[in-house]
Amino acid sequence: MNIRQKPETLIPQSVTCGPLAGSRKIYAEPRANIRVPFREIVLEPSANEPPVRVYDASGPYTEDAPQIDLSQGLPRLRAAWYGTRDFESYHGRAVKPEDNGNVGEDRLVPPCPANVAPLRGKSGKPVTQYEFARAGIITEEMIYVAARENLGREKMLADAEAKLADGESFGADIPAFVTPEFVRAEIARGRAIIPANINHPELEPMIIGRNFLVKINANIGNSAVTSSVAEEVDKMVWSIRWGADTVMDLSTGRNIHNIRDWIIRNAPVPIGTVPIYQALEKVDGDPIKLTWEMFRDTLIEQAEQGVDYFTIHAGVRLAYVPLTARRTTGIVSRGGSIMARWCLSHHRESFLYEHFDEICDIMRAYDVSFSLGDGLRPGSIADANDRAQFAELETLGELTKIAWDKGCQVMIEGPGHVPMHKIKVNMEKQLEECGEAPFYTLGPLTTDIAPGYDHITSGIGAAMIGWFGCAMLCYVTPKEHLGLPDRDDVKTGVITYRIAAHAADLAKGHPAAQVRDDALSRARFDFRWQDQFNLSLDPETARAFHDETLPKEAHKVA
Amino acid sequence: MNIRQKPETLIPQSVTCGPLAGSRKIYAEPRANIRVPFREIVLEPSANEPPVRVYDASGPYTEDAPQIDLSQGLPRLRAAWYGTRDFESYHGRAVKPEDNGNVGEDRLVPPCPANVAPLRGKSGKPVTQYEFARAGIITEEMIYVAARENLGREKMLADAEAKLADGESFGADIPAFVTPEFVRAEIARGRAIIPANINHPELEPMIIGRNFLVKINANIGNSAVTSSVAEEVDKMVWSIRWGADTVMDLSTGRNIHNIRDWIIRNAPVPIGTVPIYQALEKVDGDPIKLTWEMFRDTLIEQAEQGVDYFTIHAGVRLAYVPLTARRTTGIVSRGGSIMARWCLSHHRESFLYEHFDEICDIMRAYDVSFSLGDGLRPGSIADANDRAQFAELETLGELTKIAWDKGCQVMIEGPGHVPMHKIKVNMEKQLEECGEAPFYTLGPLTTDIAPGYDHITSGIGAAMIGWFGCAMLCYVTPKEHLGLPDRDDVKTGVITYRIAAHAADLAKGHPAAQVRDDALSRARFDFRWQDQFNLSLDPETARAFHDETLPKEAHKVA
Repeated sequence: MNIRQKPETLIPQSVTCGPLAGSRKIYAEPRANIRVPFREIVLEPSANEPPVRVYDASGPYTEDAPQIDLSQGLPRLRAAWYGTRDFESYHGRAVKPEDNGNVGEDRLVPPCPANVAPLRGKSGKPVTQYEFARAGIITEEMIYVAARENLGREKMLADAEAKLADGESFGADIPAFVTPEFVRAEIARGRAIIPANINHPELEPMIIGRNFLVKINANIGNSAVTSSVAEEVDKMVWSIRWGADTVMDLSTGRNIHNIRDWIIRNAPVPIGTVPIYQALEKVDGDPIKLTWEMFRDTLIEQAEQGVDYFTIHAGVRLAYVPLTARRTTGIVSRGGSIMARWCLSHHRESFLYEHFDEICDIMRAYDVSFSLGDGLRPGSIADANDRAQFAELETLGELTKIAWDKGCQVMIEGPGHVPMHKIKVNMEKQLEECGEAPFYTLGPLTTDIAPGYDHITSGIGAAMIGWFGCAMLCYVTPKEHLGLPDRDDVKTGVITYRIAAHAADLAKGHPAAQVRDDALSRARFDFRWQDQFNLSLDPETARAFHDETLPKEAHKVA
Repeated sequence: MNIRQKPETLIPQSVTCGPLAGSRKIYAEPRANIRVPFREIVLEPSANEPPVRVYDASGPYTEDAPQIDLSQGLPRLRAAWYGTRDFESYHGRAVKPEDNGNVGEDRLVPPCPANVAPLRGKSGKPVTQYEFARAGIITEEMIYVAARENLGREKMLADAEAKLADGESFGADIPAFVTPEFVRAEIARGRAIIPANINHPELEPMIIGRNFLVKINANIGNSAVTSSVAEEVDKMVWSIRWGADTVMDLSTGRNIHNIRDWIIRNAPVPIGTVPIYQALEKVDGDPIKLTWEMFRDTLIEQAEQGVDYFTIHAGVRLAYVPLTARRTTGIVSRGGSIMARWCLSHHRESFLYEHFDEICDIMRAYDVSFSLGDGLRPGSIADANDRAQFAELETLGELTKIAWDKGCQVMIEGPGHVPMHKIKVNMEKQLEECGEAPFYTLGPLTTDIAPGYDHITSGIGAAMIGWFGCAMLCYVTPKEHLGLPDRDDVKTGVITYRIAAHAADLAKGHPAAQVRDDALSRARFDFRWQDQFNLSLDPETARAFHDETLPKEAHKVA
């Protein structure tokens, strides 16, 4: 555990690369300088069917022969779009020793060489996707996500209305075909966000909203005990390989600023963080010592690095903390308990709530999206849908409107542990309180009795709330409540949540969702085993399971 | 594969035994000669809480020091209840070589020595639980399941109405407390069954119905290539260890009659079969050669052995077969395709449909319950809820009434592959068409794109349909569509379905369901790790996952 390493060996050298079995990466170009990635699964000639096009969040890592140099970072593809946008480049905040947990020089992970001077927006000029949308301007990001969301819908317009009519979307407004103008209008209404910090030009834009494909998030984070920066970067690449649409970096401890550098410079997906975690590190883990000034400084630190969305627990108000006193499991959100501790100790209103306007100003300047945290989410079936939870949700609704007024993009975090029959009201209340801002839930877990299988207890709830209208589902791995997920756990969590998201898309009547199910079902009926494997969410596992009992090649063709 | 074994080595010697970690077996005695098993999870002294009582389908195998002799079979506990029942013992049908697949003497698994002469009911005297219930008679089986269903409800009557009011059961009629009279009334209405062949006296009775705890079934079955009888018996014991309420033996090939002997004599849970599978073996796998006479003979063969429920695909009528012609995946039920093949080849109505009265007479004589098979269930999202499926369901409704008139217990099998938004109508239509007879579904799988993870795609659907009113959920393992499940797959399938069933019980507002969630949540909040492990569905996995990252004992107490 305490082996001393030189910084050189702390530099990540490689990550998991190469295409998924049976797939090839393609790019569509709806306009010059806009190359939208897809994955195509090529079928056996006997199928006499075109390749199946699927959404692909995995970035250049799954190209045929990817040229990856982690020190260079990914191509800065959005930089070409900034030409007409009035951003200023400036000399950013100097990195302080406490940003990296005061790690000694000999163990300091070096910053990623791909870093450049940060950009920020100016006041009075649109910076955020929300501001552009409100101004009636269609950005390149909007064009990008429109093309990305359509998949093969161009070819299936005839069917689209029938599919939509066959689904049940609970009042969502899914279009037969996604146009850039539709994207703009949804963002302008606050019903969707494109998390895209202007300092994250490596990003392949994606959209989160009820009228688009349901997205999933994977959490990664170092262990103080065992992780290296190389492992952290690979965790990100690994989780998007299997289908994570965004990644939250929940690292704590030493080197976290510099590890975040490496992750963001190499991330084609939006990266989210919980800045209060790092702020707490800077005050030696004592919530009472937190101040607005150092929290503010941490926001700027991370915004300059390019973090795309921040979880901000501004809804944990002093008056709500006593509402949790009689709960079975109190406050289980880490951010929630930090803020509750601060409020109670100082007997003061939360500084996040009191300084919310200023937080908006900072986040707007970089287009960091809000993920308004549910610090009072229920941590057990017993506590689901209680007054503490819903009081906070009402405050999140109030804050949503303030953030919109300030020009920011907003989504709302949700629970947690909720039995099946209490899930729908969560979605309905969120839509109502928060003006249809996108909902982003953790599960929810539909029972508490299965530690070790909480990807499943929560996958059930996630599929349902996704169907009801939740825009993004935060994964839960088998290790939830028990320990740190390893590579296999991350993969299992991602695949489980891809299932949940896809099941939700199907149920909502998403026009292009069933294409893949149908192709796989035909392959199954025809005993085209290779196609069945390749069309599945996890070709490797499907093939391995098949080969355990029927290993011979002949069994895959007859 | 082709190693020659002597029959002696084909005799099973041992199975998985011993209590689950942290649990002890207890028996409640609501009346003399009726000992109802439960499992109690003892908590740490610091919890200052009574043990948590949970439902236990695992039989004597999980006692502290079980005395298991597979050649003796389990104790014939129901035999003591037969005193006043007017059954006749008779010289049963002689076992024929084709019953065991004409296996050679040197490879013949011997019959289980615990076999005794079969019993059968007489006409005019009640035999089935349905007939007793209709006659106003409360059987020992009804007393048994009433005690079994209550769990700790005696102590929580004050809370029961509140729990029920807090749930959403979609018109079910769950009582605050289960009395033997309530059980009788539910069976008399056809809304519940106790699958309990009079020739299976080793059975610990259990009930399947919408107003009781949701049950799960595990399928086992030999592989022609690799399985031994010892493995098959252990698969049964293994699946009930983790929570399977019934087990279907889907074995084919050599020795299947004698393997079934061993399984039933040692099974404390109801055993279901699909007799058409064995009938097909007897005609060398050619569906066209099937006849009513040999099918009838197979029914008697299996009824005498003690099979508790038969899947009978009598709803696959000649006229419905063409309705499947334009499907994406045709007929995927094995029994369905056998019968469709027979009907088309002979261009005749199904012999199962035509001889349904006689089938009822046979099944009544032994109290074998019907599981009316859904031979036309959809095998893909594309085919869900189509006319073929629903036409068959309507016929199953017609057959249900005939079976009731004949005195038989009936449940109805359901799909299959169904997207989330089309699940509820399946439940509603089943209740309506089949007079509220219990529904027993396979999943349903909510998407087709995740072979290797179909326990999850189907666990989502299973939880939902269980909530909507499905009485029993047939598990799906990770190997579904790919290969034969091994021990780990069986366990994963069972645990996943226990999650689904429990999530459904919680959502329905079952008065005692949340006791375990609450106890586990309190343990979690108090960092009582051992209690958290022991209260979980799979203590071994929970403990192992925890120990992977935090192996020290100190980490389990603080």
